Amino acid sequence: MRISFCCTGTKAQPWLEGLRAAFPHAEVNVWSAGAPAADYAVVWTPPQQFIDEQTQLKSIFNIGAGVDALMALRLRPGVPVVRLDDAGMSVQMAEYVCHAVIRHFREFGGYEADTAQGKWSYRKPHQRADFPVGVMGLGILGERVSRALAQFDFPVRGWSRSAKSIPGVQCFSGQAGFNDFLAASRILVCLLPLTPDTENIMRHDTLARLQPGGYVINVARGSHLVDDDLMALIDSGHLAGATLDVFRTEPLPAAHPFWTHPKITVTPHTSARTLREESIAQIVGKIRALERGEAVASLEGVVDLNKGY
Amino acid sequence: MRISFCCTGTKAQPWLEGLRAAFPHAEVNVWSAGAPAADYAVVWTPPQQFIDEQTQLKSIFNIGAGVDALMALRLRPGVPVVRLDDAGMSVQMAEYVCHAVIRHFREFGGYEADTAQGKWSYRKPHQRADFPVGVMGLGILGERVSRALAQFDFPVRGWSRSAKSIPGVQCFSGQAGFNDFLAASRILVCLLPLTPDTENIMRHDTLARLQPGGYVINVARGSHLVDDDLMALIDSGHLAGATLDVFRTEPLPAAHPFWTHPKITVTPHTSARTLREESIAQIVGKIRALERGEAVASLEGVVDLNKGY
Repeated sequence: MRISFCCTGTKAQPWLEGLRAAFPHAEVNVWSAGAPAADYAVVWTPPQQFIDEQTQLKSIFNIGAGVDALMALRLRPGVPVVRLDDAGMSVQMAEYVCHAVIRHFREFGGYEADTAQGKWSYRKPHQRADFPVGVMGLGILGERVSRALAQFDFPVRGWSRSAKSIPGVQCFSGQAGFNDFLAASRILVCLLPLTPDTENIMRHDTLARLQPGGYVINVARGSHLVDDDLMALIDSGHLAGATLDVFRTEPLPAAHPFWTHPKITVTPHTSARTLREESIAQIVGKIRALERGEAVASLEGVVDLNKGY
Repeated sequence: MRISFCCTGTKAQPWLEGLRAAFPHAEVNVWSAGAPAADYAVVWTPPQQFIDEQTQLKSIFNIGAGVDALMALRLRPGVPVVRLDDAGMSVQMAEYVCHAVIRHFREFGGYEADTAQGKWSYRKPHQRADFPVGVMGLGILGERVSRALAQFDFPVRGWSRSAKSIPGVQCFSGQAGFNDFLAASRILVCLLPLTPDTENIMRHDTLARLQPGGYVINVARGSHLVDDDLMALIDSGHLAGATLDVFRTEPLPAAHPFWTHPKITVTPHTSARTLREESIAQIVGKIRALERGEAVASLEGVVDLNKGY
């Protein structure tokens, strides 16, 4: 068996060691142009040339949850793409989003600014009922985030393409439910896959439907959000601010106004990091299943190439 | 029926209005020296004179969870003291503690410092298994906080005077279990009642038993913690820092070194604020039960005057 590793911006050695330890008889190597045909590929934003040259792949494993970079390539029909399913990411997302929601709701950032000046001062607590949180995208990550928020007694709304049911979450679906979902939300959390349908989904006319004092948390992809529309709605006072982990260009360019906007918190795409050990274990388990003759369709995380996620 | 309101540092008018609305035939007034004897008292840190003069009370309602200030007075034997049970406080505690734990574990404070300088930089994620969280005090607040932490997959330990069992929490109890509890914890959360037994419970020899890189979150009372011992252990490197909401003197005096210590986060006793509407509703319900002839012992939140909580 031959496994080709082609991951941009990722330290290869620990991955190679992990995969070699699991498959001592396999050839596991970093891909380079002209490399021999592999059976499996482990990838993150590979170049088109990789797809074009590797014609014998039984499966491509994407070491992230989002496959939008892969979907932008010309893929070979019939080669399944498998993304990480959870692998320690959903709990990180729950942490990131709950931290951001609590920090905003409880004004802990404001308290820190006060105490930095030696000020002991109270702020009037907000009513939890006035802070419904809407989660867009109810896959593994979105569902876990929704449940975590519900535990803090926030009213939680969810929106997904096809109808879902999650205990404690008021679920909306499809284009028909989208405006009602937005109108029922004050804090908006984006956990959607990036597809042609969801690109620019957070723009002036949609964000304007959020309840007054709305707040945006984007942990999906930068292209879900129209940057200037967000800032215009914050500056007009309709939105209270945003916490953003993902950007159209990453790293966020030095001149981008998000860096210094007083109501926008920026983090460097760290909301849910790929955890190497969990991810290797998951990919190894899936390769073993395929080698045993199990059907690709039986694996978790197989991407629907028509839907794009 | 006469209800006497004697709450230091609390805006009286909304409480009086709420109680009068519930009991239109009662006399509800702010206590002053020489006031007529009342049937019920609603108090927060009342003076000794209040206790000495009010000799006909059927019950004293404390508008907080902690009754240490009341316990420091000479109370009349046979007059029950009832504290708030939950009334919206446990969810606030869960929020405060989860925010502090996640912020420390994920280094979000460090990320904010980086982004304030326009720096896009990664930090290596910590292993969750290396961050067991120990919760001291497993009453209504401690139990809810423990469950909230367990949901984020942290190993959670709990310690209480008498043995308890909480799903997903490794419980220790009594003096016999205390050192093992500390040794099994890296982040320590204090939610104990303040009694002679628990005063100064966080001091050099106990905090030194926490795992290296330990972190202290105090949301109970300032007197649980020996301030200088905490700072010595942070400065020696054994502890990584602390988030403190309560202090021996409040407001925290301007000259106190906590204000400016780079590894200590100070908040102004805001972790779980008394929510007026919920609290009035709870006290009204309890007075009604007593007036119907129900036994005090049947109420939630009756203080054991021997234990002091």
